[in-house]
Amino acid sequence: MTSPMASWLAREIASQPALIEELLAREIPHIAEIVARLPAFSYIVIAARGSSDHAATYAVYTWAALAGWPVALAAPSLYTLYETPPRLDGALVVGISQSGQSPDIVAVVSEARRQGRPTLAITNDRNSPLGNTADEVVELGVGIEQSVAATKTYLAQLAVIAIFAAAWSGSTERLADLRAVPAALNATLQGTSDITARIQRYRDVAGFTVIGRGFNYATAFELALKLKELTSIQAIAYSSADFRHGPVATISNGSPVILVMPRGAAYADMYELALGLRQREADLLVISDVPEGLALATTPLPLAVAAPEWLSPLTTILPGQKLALQLTLARGMNPDAPRGLQKVTRTL
Amino acid sequence: MTSPMASWLAREIASQPALIEELLAREIPHIAEIVARLPAFSYIVIAARGSSDHAATYAVYTWAALAGWPVALAAPSLYTLYETPPRLDGALVVGISQSGQSPDIVAVVSEARRQGRPTLAITNDRNSPLGNTADEVVELGVGIEQSVAATKTYLAQLAVIAIFAAAWSGSTERLADLRAVPAALNATLQGTSDITARIQRYRDVAGFTVIGRGFNYATAFELALKLKELTSIQAIAYSSADFRHGPVATISNGSPVILVMPRGAAYADMYELALGLRQREADLLVISDVPEGLALATTPLPLAVAAPEWLSPLTTILPGQKLALQLTLARGMNPDAPRGLQKVTRTL
Repeated sequence: MTSPMASWLAREIASQPALIEELLAREIPHIAEIVARLPAFSYIVIAARGSSDHAATYAVYTWAALAGWPVALAAPSLYTLYETPPRLDGALVVGISQSGQSPDIVAVVSEARRQGRPTLAITNDRNSPLGNTADEVVELGVGIEQSVAATKTYLAQLAVIAIFAAAWSGSTERLADLRAVPAALNATLQGTSDITARIQRYRDVAGFTVIGRGFNYATAFELALKLKELTSIQAIAYSSADFRHGPVATISNGSPVILVMPRGAAYADMYELALGLRQREADLLVISDVPEGLALATTPLPLAVAAPEWLSPLTTILPGQKLALQLTLARGMNPDAPRGLQKVTRTL
Repeated sequence: MTSPMASWLAREIASQPALIEELLAREIPHIAEIVARLPAFSYIVIAARGSSDHAATYAVYTWAALAGWPVALAAPSLYTLYETPPRLDGALVVGISQSGQSPDIVAVVSEARRQGRPTLAITNDRNSPLGNTADEVVELGVGIEQSVAATKTYLAQLAVIAIFAAAWSGSTERLADLRAVPAALNATLQGTSDITARIQRYRDVAGFTVIGRGFNYATAFELALKLKELTSIQAIAYSSADFRHGPVATISNGSPVILVMPRGAAYADMYELALGLRQREADLLVISDVPEGLALATTPLPLAVAAPEWLSPLTTILPGQKLALQLTLARGMNPDAPRGLQKVTRTL
């Protein structure tokens, strides 16, 4: 429930369950057709920036784990600044961009076409330069995003990636998992409705560390970006594995650390990390559906339902979006006008 | 020149020019042989963690720009935690690990062998599990690294990657560029010999932002990791392109930002970013050989020589290593015993 005076950001966060339900109904059959007619390829290259790049990170795990595809993230500078695009033999090339406007993402897809490779665009505007360049286009169809910080377009990108994974896997069970997502999103949003009082303690912190692993590596990056964009507080994301290779040195008494640790194969490793961080007296914020994990938190951010791990990034980002929104308000800032940002970022 | 009482870290930083000279003499002919006998492949997958992962990021740019290979960074969790390794048809699979001990890196290379793909290890210990798993092994040969923070092994990994790029390019000019590196390293170290007085102002900052692009994207990540490991100060790395997609919101009056901007194709974009950061009154530390770029800095960190851009990451990291070392000493900390770190990190 959002009031008529609520920010665009609050309204767009609240709109997500219904939008994802519509997207699934529209795109499950459409993406099945695309998958059936795509020519042969042996690996996938994705070009994306910002939140779309975090969606691409979700694809790295999901398209490999469910469908066996190795995924490379393109370095767009190779196609633009350096004018040394690699040979793309064997690749399916995917561009992900909310606006479809970023020239560097278009350049990667355009070069792939020039080399005769199959191309796919995932965008909220099929009439954009990106939409007009790719062979196949999946439109997010979630309406214009008024808030500068991406929320509904990020979630819609994850949903499109999840549909491709299910389609490539050929598993009816995966499709059934997908169809349960809107109800899970609704329940999760309900369950995180009031965190205002509990997050006041973080209003003036110097920075957050955000950690996730595997499918939720993407969630850690996206949540860190929301915190930076909206609150101007520094936030840095890691996988639990990389975190132990050095960055753990930055954590001391009282450092706020957000752990994304829903149930699944990555949970045990995250739980062990949480225990170690407690010994360093870090201030833990835990996003999880597991009571034992939540019990380690200074600030538990419970997930009301348990999703299959491969779909959990669609639910785990929701308490993160709420946290960033509430912290922005607690700091007296306007969530619809982040400092020094524009909606469309055109990088070459 | 380092005193007998200097830290291992200081001695290992100083040892790099001679070690890289020996490495080039030893490995240029050896890597030419490996390149000649490798079976056909159409893209490259690299598995690495920590500083080795930053070397892998250098390979993403260098192996594409000089030799046309698309490079994917493996997500090791797919091979270990999730037990869902992708199909590696068409891939050359490379493991990079200083110790050669990390089970997840070994798991990726081992799976590639199981699938009949060619494999390569880049390690400082050919008798390690990684060295024993790969078909081809390039040993860094720089001696045991006593300091917990990687310096000479990181630089040696970059040198090995650069030799592969030159060998694949078939260009004698590239080989000549490479042979000039040890002299450039020497001159660069000489030119950064005393920054102690100038870096006192950063002794108690809350965090650094470090930005590089293209070939020096890797440098930004490696420098940020050195600062975190050694000084326990938060440090976060971006490409200039990603930085504009949100994180710029975290920069305000006095925020220290380190810009890695040697001459080359990425320079103009970095210079434009530097101008914008000056308007926000950020405190700029600039690593560059271009006087115009250095003139924008609060703290210029000049490079004494201009390297070809593809080799510049071997020189640009040196003022970064010195900065991290001197800041560690200025904070009264021991550079050889970073807080809570071990030399070998074993992640699954």
